[in-house]
Amino acid sequence: MTVAESHRESPTDEPPQAFVPGHVTGLFSVHPADDPRKAGSRGAGLALSAGVTVTVVPADETTVELDGETVEMEAVTGTLDRLDVSAAVRVESDLPVSAGFGVSGGAALGAVLVANERFDLERTENELVSVAHAAEVAAGTGLGDVVAQARGGAPLRCEPGAPGHGELNGIATPPTRVEYVSFGGRSTGEIIGGDVETLTQAGERALAALRDAPTLPHLFACSRAFAKDADLLTPSVERAIDDVRDAGGEAAMAMLGETVIALGDGLTRAGYEPASCEIDRAGARLV
Amino acid sequence: MTVAESHRESPTDEPPQAFVPGHVTGLFSVHPADDPRKAGSRGAGLALSAGVTVTVVPADETTVELDGETVEMEAVTGTLDRLDVSAAVRVESDLPVSAGFGVSGGAALGAVLVANERFDLERTENELVSVAHAAEVAAGTGLGDVVAQARGGAPLRCEPGAPGHGELNGIATPPTRVEYVSFGGRSTGEIIGGDVETLTQAGERALAALRDAPTLPHLFACSRAFAKDADLLTPSVERAIDDVRDAGGEAAMAMLGETVIALGDGLTRAGYEPASCEIDRAGARLV
Repeated sequence: MTVAESHRESPTDEPPQAFVPGHVTGLFSVHPADDPRKAGSRGAGLALSAGVTVTVVPADETTVELDGETVEMEAVTGTLDRLDVSAAVRVESDLPVSAGFGVSGGAALGAVLVANERFDLERTENELVSVAHAAEVAAGTGLGDVVAQARGGAPLRCEPGAPGHGELNGIATPPTRVEYVSFGGRSTGEIIGGDVETLTQAGERALAALRDAPTLPHLFACSRAFAKDADLLTPSVERAIDDVRDAGGEAAMAMLGETVIALGDGLTRAGYEPASCEIDRAGARLV
Repeated sequence: MTVAESHRESPTDEPPQAFVPGHVTGLFSVHPADDPRKAGSRGAGLALSAGVTVTVVPADETTVELDGETVEMEAVTGTLDRLDVSAAVRVESDLPVSAGFGVSGGAALGAVLVANERFDLERTENELVSVAHAAEVAAGTGLGDVVAQARGGAPLRCEPGAPGHGELNGIATPPTRVEYVSFGGRSTGEIIGGDVETLTQAGERALAALRDAPTLPHLFACSRAFAKDADLLTPSVERAIDDVRDAGGEAAMAMLGETVIALGDGLTRAGYEPASCEIDRAGARLV
């Protein structure tokens, strides 16, 4: 065993992997900028123990495979381009795509973490997060998932942008079960690329209210107010949230998917058959 | 089950607890300031899966028990004073005190996390970390452990101070086994309260070198150079580091204790009988 290998807990020939938690946004505002590292969102959400696992194998050309299917995932391709490397990236996801779980951002963040290891790039964690954030913003598929997924927990995105520009905080949470159901997909790009003035005003108001009393139940309440003010609810989402509330639980919409999340067993008690996971407190990591 | 309880994974009558990873500093520089939130250290280290578990029970007067013994722990008392609450704080530690593992900072950080939950204080994570950091600095028992323990991983403390003042980064690490042996205690206050000009110059040099190539083996190399330049090595520590190096491993001193840490099984291979743990990537958390 060489010294370079000896610090791994169980040295194997397996390529390095990264796990990146999913991330559901409960409320947000949009903050464009010419430099994609400065662009981003303010907002609040939850990092989830359901997420994506990413492997990276050096190759002549960058390709992306998601759960065994070759896909276009511009955030991932852009991430490796920015590092000046090319590789076959394999993403396995516990979560549906385009349903508000940050799968594209997670894939980009996982790819950058593994590529750093695999290509001996010697970048700091902040530099790696910055690359994935910039690629995700440039791809138009997300504005705040990457920094939240890197942090873990219940992230408050107080200032937009990558490390060095943005500013993060968090709600302190005990171990917490989260349930979710998805009724379909939704294009993030379509909404964040459109007229976002009303949405951003509603998001700023909701974040300010949440910061006055940063607790999990209040995150859900502020998210519901935001979804209504920003006119984001679909009939299925609205009905599920109402059902959970009627059964005495906390539920909210995951932005931007047709997805409802609930604390504890809120969806089960309301008669749904949700998937469940926990809040992930560690954030993105090599595994 | 009420809604307030329902989001806990396993609702029980147990009081909330926090786990805070231990933290070993490999290199550092000292940065005093009148405001303890602005004071701190730059440096680099490792958060450990061995750490402290803290419970807080409201009481008329604040007391601290460490592994069953009543102790004075000013960082903890100061933390609760700053929150304007009083409680019986119980700390259980996997790690020896005054040996460079950040037990006092960990106890303060654990106390603030549990107190926030227990007294419904509704503070953000950054606010809580800030309180524990300020109390630890004011107590003179540490300068950078708290912010590093809150973050987890292999933290680089690029700017000193609490959240909002300091700046953190990290070395991306795979799951990593760490071994350690302690040869005795050492007073942090004695060293960081004394003449630290040489030490701080050596610490700044070592951190700059590490940031050029932020990897785990390089952290150990920079730490060894720092310990020598700052004249911190004791004969037992120096001998153990040399033994691990002779056996082909990576070892360094944990500042400021008479403690040696090694990557992987470095100390075992050199004939020592160390304790072992892993790098903790999640940071301080309610459990």
